[in-house]
Amino acid sequence: MKNVLIIGCGLLGSSLLRKISKKKIAKKIFVYEKSKLNISKIKKLKLPGKIVKSLKDAVVNSDLIIFCTPTSEYKKIILKINNFVSPNTIITDIGSSKIESSKIIKKFLKRGIHWTRSHPITGSEVSGPEHGKDNMFEDKWCVLIKDKKTNLKHLKFLNSFWKKVGSKTVIMSSEKHDKIFSITSHLPHLIAYNLVKSAQDFEKILKFNLIKYSAGGLRDFSRIAASNEIMWRDIFFDNKINITKAIDLFIKNLKSFKKDINKKNNKSILKKLIKTKKVRIKIIKLKQDIDKPNFGRD
Amino acid sequence: MKNVLIIGCGLLGSSLLRKISKKKIAKKIFVYEKSKLNISKIKKLKLPGKIVKSLKDAVVNSDLIIFCTPTSEYKKIILKINNFVSPNTIITDIGSSKIESSKIIKKFLKRGIHWTRSHPITGSEVSGPEHGKDNMFEDKWCVLIKDKKTNLKHLKFLNSFWKKVGSKTVIMSSEKHDKIFSITSHLPHLIAYNLVKSAQDFEKILKFNLIKYSAGGLRDFSRIAASNEIMWRDIFFDNKINITKAIDLFIKNLKSFKKDINKKNNKSILKKLIKTKKVRIKIIKLKQDIDKPNFGRD
Repeated sequence: MKNVLIIGCGLLGSSLLRKISKKKIAKKIFVYEKSKLNISKIKKLKLPGKIVKSLKDAVVNSDLIIFCTPTSEYKKIILKINNFVSPNTIITDIGSSKIESSKIIKKFLKRGIHWTRSHPITGSEVSGPEHGKDNMFEDKWCVLIKDKKTNLKHLKFLNSFWKKVGSKTVIMSSEKHDKIFSITSHLPHLIAYNLVKSAQDFEKILKFNLIKYSAGGLRDFSRIAASNEIMWRDIFFDNKINITKAIDLFIKNLKSFKKDINKKNNKSILKKLIKTKKVRIKIIKLKQDIDKPNFGRD
Repeated sequence: MKNVLIIGCGLLGSSLLRKISKKKIAKKIFVYEKSKLNISKIKKLKLPGKIVKSLKDAVVNSDLIIFCTPTSEYKKIILKINNFVSPNTIITDIGSSKIESSKIIKKFLKRGIHWTRSHPITGSEVSGPEHGKDNMFEDKWCVLIKDKKTNLKHLKFLNSFWKKVGSKTVIMSSEKHDKIFSITSHLPHLIAYNLVKSAQDFEKILKFNLIKYSAGGLRDFSRIAASNEIMWRDIFFDNKINITKAIDLFIKNLKSFKKDINKKNNKSILKKLIKTKKVRIKIIKLKQDIDKPNFGRD
């Protein structure tokens, strides 16, 4: 690969920038970023790559374009690049939900141009280029989407690209992707936001300083409830059908827990509590988390 | 203080044992533990203190008795110690919910004997004496309960005891305690259990290996959903009135989020997502969690 263009240089964009530069995966790296604050941070951090003000030249001269913006930015940028992309340009993104944003891409991207979708399973509750790091993708899954119209040559290229960046890759359909991540990522984030919101509401009702005692469990949830709000709004809106199904099952299960508690149904509640324990063991075995108690933070 | 008796030597009991011994807070430490597996672990670990098979002598010879068992064990042990305790014996516990278990204590503890309640806000998803550590209470809150009948002399003693163990102390009523921790601890645990259960249900429905991709958020919840099931059953049952209220508000809020998502109500959802972010900052400022992204685990 010769040149790459990173559109959106926040947490993940800047991490890609660092890694591509460090491993010399591309000859030139162009960076397009709309936020003046982020641009000044990138300059201050002396990150590699060339910041471009206009997309034209960077698009024409890039073999690979990676969208690292929230999905709600796609349309605007597609309309800016349509005149400069060629069918050989490999376009991808790092978005967390695929079906809805694919409709935007299909609707606005010039005919004959391919966009092959990626989703690296990584990130953090903090945002911005100052928090990026070159090992962000190391040993993390990157899902590549293969649908009916996926360009297999581009898919192959991206599979190799994400491996170079440090990821383990897996290929699946948009449908399967959006279902899986509605459960393993989107619902957990929504639940965390909702729990923290409920704690805030109770703080108002009770007029107690609750947050002071959050080490009892609440603090765990506050981490992902501090994630970027624009990104998560887009994900919730994009994957709303799957997320709605997930919410419904979650509420059904919560009502069943409530019933167990109110009836002091020992057998039923213990069965649930014992079964959920096994997931932690599985997660650690699959190297999806560290094995130290309390995330090793104490 | 001369001698102390620790009843139940799991994660927290063994942590107290280690700390009391290390800081030489007591002359003698007696340990009563019903699980043979735990006793063999304690011996193998060469933990300090004297393991006692019968409670009689240990109770008679102790100035302080600390219950470190789930609350469902209290009755059985109270009936065993009633004949040997004196009004001067300071009795406390580390239980996470207070109102219901106080009823058990009131009903079964011999008249004239005082039990002054403590709740150190610490713990882990792992159980057993092998996971205890002497700094378990360091800089953690310990709530001391002051109700109408609390013995103030004993309260003062315990306040000083927990400080020696490393805790910051705060005094409040049972009612306030059970309300606060229904939100900051009990609801988060229930929600974590419920989320992991929902993921397990979806795994069955979808026939996908979801857990493999849990680094997207689910893994955070799986930690506290791996906590000791007996302890948490007791807490849920003991504090059921407050927890039920918390569940109801949680479901109400979740339905409101669902509505926002389905109607793509940008203004309403962003307001929520932005507001919850502030809690994380507050938690870190209050030193209830570390300030590193991703709990510093990556």
